[in-house]
Parts: sequence; structure tokens; C-alpha cells
Amino acid sequence: MARWEPGAAGRLREAAVELFARQGFDQTTAAEIAAAAGLTRRTFFRHFPDKRDVLFAGEAALERALVSAVDEAPEGLSPLSLIGLALDRASDVFVDMPRDRVRARQAIIDSDASLLERQREKYAALARAMGAALARRGIGEPAATLAAECASVVFTVALTQWLADGESRSLSVIAAEVLAELRALDVPR
Amino acid sequence: MARWEPGAAGRLREAAVELFARQGFDQTTAAEIAAAAGLTRRTFFRHFPDKRDVLFAGEAALERALVSAVDEAPEGLSPLSLIGLALDRASDVFVDMPRDRVRARQAIIDSDASLLERQREKYAALARAMGAALARRGIGEPAATLAAECASVVFTVALTQWLADGESRSLSVIAAEVLAELRALDVPR
Repeated sequence: MARWEPGAAGRLREAAVELFARQGFDQTTAAEIAAAAGLTRRTFFRHFPDKRDVLFAGEAALERALVSAVDEAPEGLSPLSLIGLALDRASDVFVDMPRDRVRARQAIIDSDASLLERQREKYAALARAMGAALARRGIGEPAATLAAECASVVFTVALTQWLADGESRSLSVIAAEVLAELRALDVPR
Repeated sequence: MARWEPGAAGRLREAAVELFARQGFDQTTAAEIAAAAGLTRRTFFRHFPDKRDVLFAGEAALERALVSAVDEAPEGLSPLSLIGLALDRASDVFVDMPRDRVRARQAIIDSDASLLERQREKYAALARAMGAALARRGIGEPAATLAAECASVVFTVALTQWLADGESRSLSVIAAEVLAELRALDVPR
């Protein structure tokens, strides 16, 4: 697999996904990940507090993308339109990521209950950050929380579709389509 | 606190909430709960697989309410209207419950990470059951999943409000209000 992330942290993340996928999460140590990345165990722990966190380091960029899109949006938009801008900006975080690597990462997370729980916590934190950004724009409760939770649901559904076998559309196209489906939920059928 | 649930299972649930609230979840044994309810430890384990489950036995009634409302609804409704019917039926499950007792139960869950995780799993299972009920009515994907997750979000927000200090409105009134807020998320503001 070609290197796609420069720098020590990126090399550690890449090596971690490869090793976890090949030999299992429980069977892989931080020292092995560091060695595979040509780095020391000490360097590993300078970048990540524990073995689990090497899988979730990307969530900070995602939060920055979601929140900055809401902060910078023009006035007079509906909460769902703000969510649309945020999801579009968040999709950009995935543009240069090889889909197979994100798929491998998700398969590792799905294989371990404690990793799934960590992912749920990370998503809940993203939703709280979105809710706070919406509140800063004067959107009251419960609208801010509802909109942030809707963003989380749309993003989760879109990401699952993006990772599905045979899917070739970009995440931003899929997220826009899922948001349109959410907007159409009040149409009788 | 007056007895409000007849039968062994109800007495065990009631005694569990009282003991957990008074002396802590970790410090309370199944045998103590059984004794407080005037029953044996063996009877406890005939009703509940473990100490945790005594707090979550009500979720089965909630699932039956949500799913039956969707199954029995007339044709030609939107997914959000189906959710409205389901939330209304689910609210009925809480009508005869003393609010202080539900509040005490939630405080116990909030005090323990493993109980919170169990509650998240239960809510996820409710959302899956709702999604399946919507799919049986011919609602496709991702609409069925989106609508079920919206129901879960609305219910969680409404229940939190119902349990807030000083709140006296019924859960069904609050849930209808929160659903109306969800429907208004596409209005510019």
C-alpha cells in the first residue's frame, strides 16, 4: 500500500491499520506498530495516548471541518441547510483517503466491542460540537440538538454507503443525497 | 414510595431502583434486591439474567408499543407521521409511571459507564425494530433507517425534557412538540 500520509503520526496510523487488519487488534502492540513505521515505541506514545487512539486521530479534522462550516456560513439559512454545508466540508476530509484503507479501518472497529464504543463516543462528541456551533448562531433548543443529531445520522448512513462494495461516488455526493432523503421524510408514501 | 407495579418482576424492579439509588449500583447485590422485595435470590434470576437487566426490563413494552403503532397505522402516511403515531403510543407506556421513579432510574444509569452503554444498546435495538417496521410498510432505504433514527433522537430529547425539574406536561405532549421542532428544521432563521 502506498504511503499517503506524510509525517510520523500519519505513518503510525497507516502501519496500525495494516497490522490490525493482518494480525488482529488484540494481537498487535504499540511497539510493533512503531517498528513497522520505522519509529520507536516512545514516538508512538508521544503521538497517541493508547493503541486505540491511533484509529481515531482523524476525528479532530472532522470536527474542525463540521464546526468551521457552520461558523462561516452566511446568515438566514435553515438548520438543515447549515448541516448540508457542514457535511460537504466534512466530506472533503475523506477526499484524499484511499477508500480501501477507510474500509479496513472500519472492519477493525466493527470487530471489537471496545472500539465500537470508542467510535460511538467520538460521534457523540462530534454531535455535541455541532450542536454548540448551531447554538452560537442563535439556534435554540431543542432545534440545535435535533439538527446536530440529524447531521450525525446522515453522516453515518452516507459513510456506510461510501464504503459499500462497488460504490464509486464521492462522499459529498452521497451525503447530499442522504440529506435530501431526510428532507423528504414528511412526504406521504 | 407506594407500590405501583404488581407481580414479582415489578416488585423486583421497584426495589432495585430504591436500593441502587440509596446505596449505589456496585454496592447492591441481586440477593439484597430480592430480600427487599420479599422474594428469593432464585426468583430474581428467574426474572432477570443479571443485576443490570432489572433496570431495562421496560424496554420490551416500549418496543411493542413503537412497532405495533407502525404496523397498525393507516396507509398513505409520511414516515414522520408514522413516527408521530409510534411516539404517541410509546408515551402511553410511561403514563402510569411515577416521574420521580423514572428520574431515579435515569440517575442510576447516568452514574455508571456500563449502564449507559447498555442503555445505548437498548436504544439502538429499538431503532432497528422501528426501521424494520417501516421497511415492512414498503419504505425503502435510507428513508427507513433515517426515520427510525429520527424517532430515537426525538424520543431521547422528549424523555430528557419530561424528566427535567419542574416539567409537568405529559410525555406525549412533549414528544409531539419535539417532533414539530424536527419538522421545522428546514425553516430559515
